[in-house]
Amino acid sequence: MKTKAEIISIGSELTSGQNLDAHSQWLSRRLAEIGISVGWHTTVADDLDANVEVFRIATRRAALVLMTGGLGPTQDDLTREALAKLAGVELVFDEHSFAEIKAMFTRRGRSFPERNRVQALFPVGAEPIPNANGTAPGVWMIVDGCAIAAMPGVPSEMHAMYETQVKPRVLALGHGGGVLVQRKINCFGAGESAVEEKLLDLTRRDHVPEVGITVSDATISLRILAHAPDQAAAQALIAPVEKTILTRLGDLVYGFEEEELQEVVLRLLAEKRLTLATAESITGGQVAQRITRQPGASRWFRGGIVAYDNGIKADLLGVPQELLDTHGAVSPPVVEAMAVGCRARMKTDLAVSTSGLAGPDGGTPEKPIGLVFVGLAWPGGVLSRSWNWGGSRTEVQSRTAKLALNLVRLHLSRER
Amino acid sequence: MKTKAEIISIGSELTSGQNLDAHSQWLSRRLAEIGISVGWHTTVADDLDANVEVFRIATRRAALVLMTGGLGPTQDDLTREALAKLAGVELVFDEHSFAEIKAMFTRRGRSFPERNRVQALFPVGAEPIPNANGTAPGVWMIVDGCAIAAMPGVPSEMHAMYETQVKPRVLALGHGGGVLVQRKINCFGAGESAVEEKLLDLTRRDHVPEVGITVSDATISLRILAHAPDQAAAQALIAPVEKTILTRLGDLVYGFEEEELQEVVLRLLAEKRLTLATAESITGGQVAQRITRQPGASRWFRGGIVAYDNGIKADLLGVPQELLDTHGAVSPPVVEAMAVGCRARMKTDLAVSTSGLAGPDGGTPEKPIGLVFVGLAWPGGVLSRSWNWGGSRTEVQSRTAKLALNLVRLHLSRER
Repeated sequence: MKTKAEIISIGSELTSGQNLDAHSQWLSRRLAEIGISVGWHTTVADDLDANVEVFRIATRRAALVLMTGGLGPTQDDLTREALAKLAGVELVFDEHSFAEIKAMFTRRGRSFPERNRVQALFPVGAEPIPNANGTAPGVWMIVDGCAIAAMPGVPSEMHAMYETQVKPRVLALGHGGGVLVQRKINCFGAGESAVEEKLLDLTRRDHVPEVGITVSDATISLRILAHAPDQAAAQALIAPVEKTILTRLGDLVYGFEEEELQEVVLRLLAEKRLTLATAESITGGQVAQRITRQPGASRWFRGGIVAYDNGIKADLLGVPQELLDTHGAVSPPVVEAMAVGCRARMKTDLAVSTSGLAGPDGGTPEKPIGLVFVGLAWPGGVLSRSWNWGGSRTEVQSRTAKLALNLVRLHLSRER
Repeated sequence: MKTKAEIISIGSELTSGQNLDAHSQWLSRRLAEIGISVGWHTTVADDLDANVEVFRIATRRAALVLMTGGLGPTQDDLTREALAKLAGVELVFDEHSFAEIKAMFTRRGRSFPERNRVQALFPVGAEPIPNANGTAPGVWMIVDGCAIAAMPGVPSEMHAMYETQVKPRVLALGHGGGVLVQRKINCFGAGESAVEEKLLDLTRRDHVPEVGITVSDATISLRILAHAPDQAAAQALIAPVEKTILTRLGDLVYGFEEEELQEVVLRLLAEKRLTLATAESITGGQVAQRITRQPGASRWFRGGIVAYDNGIKADLLGVPQELLDTHGAVSPPVVEAMAVGCRARMKTDLAVSTSGLAGPDGGTPEKPIGLVFVGLAWPGGVLSRSWNWGGSRTEVQSRTAKLALNLVRLHLSRER
């Protein structure tokens, strides 16, 4: 039996790459909230035959199809015609919709352009969906047992039409039934396969609830996805799996849902009433920038020094010239001296530092591109850690900024 | 005859709405550059049967299929298996690819996880595509007369693999016909409607070549899009329109294509052999971070001070306490003193500074959220400018970072 939904976005401005399709993501999230899983997103150019064919494939494999775009008054708006062809019926003129379209123009004090008349045409057997925010009505119809809702592409019109008109119709179909609830657990400090090795029994394809693993700029996220009759039942499925994951991954886990490392760091600083400063070389200000992105950061973050030039490392951070000469700027002693110097200079409880080779030039066999060091100084001492990143210059920089924040997090959370 | 291309994105994190698919747009733009029109984007969940079916539909209707994702080492990475099923062949182990994957781990100083072994499996008859930036090789194969390229989902790996490996293979197929050429002109320093008012005759819908205007985080971009039989004919359409735009917009224009303000600033610094430092309050390190994102930034950028706390403004930047008490940190005298102090402290030719209210709290009727100041000190003097931004905290911060960079750009380019 077909259970999944498909989302179709119509428009050559999308397939050409001129515009980015954000509607598919938005609608997928809305359907998840009412327990309907989306199997496919399809985007198709403004071509009648291609539209009909794409609609046909969708109605065969999906139980519900939500589509956006192609309902305007111009010649490249083909959705009404394609739906009629799909169902093998004619387009008929709907007086009531026509009156509503004309009234919309009157309310806006504009004369009615004759070409907007086509927006009152509907396939025989289809139901017009009123549009409170624009001229194009939507279309609701059932073809081969598949429910179809066609909505305008204008974001404000589509969002309002979905919430007030389409969602109630979808719920009335009794699909999905129940809810899809997702729990996202975020980790930092190991590779994707190293994390999955600890969870192979959970990430099996047939595991219930489903556990997925994704990596984004060195942050590993685990998604537990439960399909259940209601929220409570979904939570009951998720809770034991979440507990297992937290136990096995230990302090690799730093947060949940959309939480980022700097939020956790600021929360821990606030809990312990400790101040922080940054001394950055390779990350060039990005650690400070991530922290100050958070509202209220000024309470615990005093400031930072971007010591890009070695002269600045010596002059402003007090790194002994001898250390720079002997070990080079990219080394544990220098990154530790940066943290110690920064802490003294900024008069903070903690200071975190970064150094490394972001590339594209400047690597050697001993110190390859991607080699980085992060350091942390606190009232009781100093330490440093190293890592070897792959990736582009900007990826090495952003991953190193996360590595530095993670070092602060681990220090603060182990100190309890 | 099939002539169009299809782009397939694989991953339940996309169909669920958790992540936004940006690859389809990127690849559509790249294909347009070589005259290949894209008819469909398809996104499919991590489900083997659904993958095979989607691949089958694509190979029937498209002449070329580019796909991303599903090549990782974990159990939900199904692309290799789905391609084998599509072609009705077995997966075989490729020793050469395996050696390259292992070498990647060695270079990064990490032990090889056995799970990554699956990345060396390829459908019989397929050609492995080397991945210079990661462990997952791509797959190139022809099925039923349709060329297929499967690439990893990691953006940096996919972009590099497309440019260096896939594009040459696609060109060799001899698809396409004519070219779509785009010229992008980037501006900063005025609003979108103020820019469009100078260009209303060009942005008309029926203008040839097409001229579009978009705004992204206060950067206004104009795109001239020409469709012509060859590059030369397209350039001939574009050149006069480009000239008109440059004349009318003057120094609002800072660059072309994907060029960003910091690239222009670094180029101008290099031309004039001048050094720069940053003194940041509201932007919290972002001006420095944008500059150091550029390869070779260390030559002209010495470093910066993130003076988030007023004590740091006085102590490290030498801003007189009296100025802070009289005018407040968010004021022209303080932002100018920050720039002057930074220039002296960092021993650079120029120093740029930022101060302002990013919100969400702390606004007053006289100094509302979004009010910012940027300052610039040079051997001959100092100046400051103010701006009132709308938007969220992170938007105010990133726009102010651009405002500061633009101040440096205007100073350097007017000085000629």
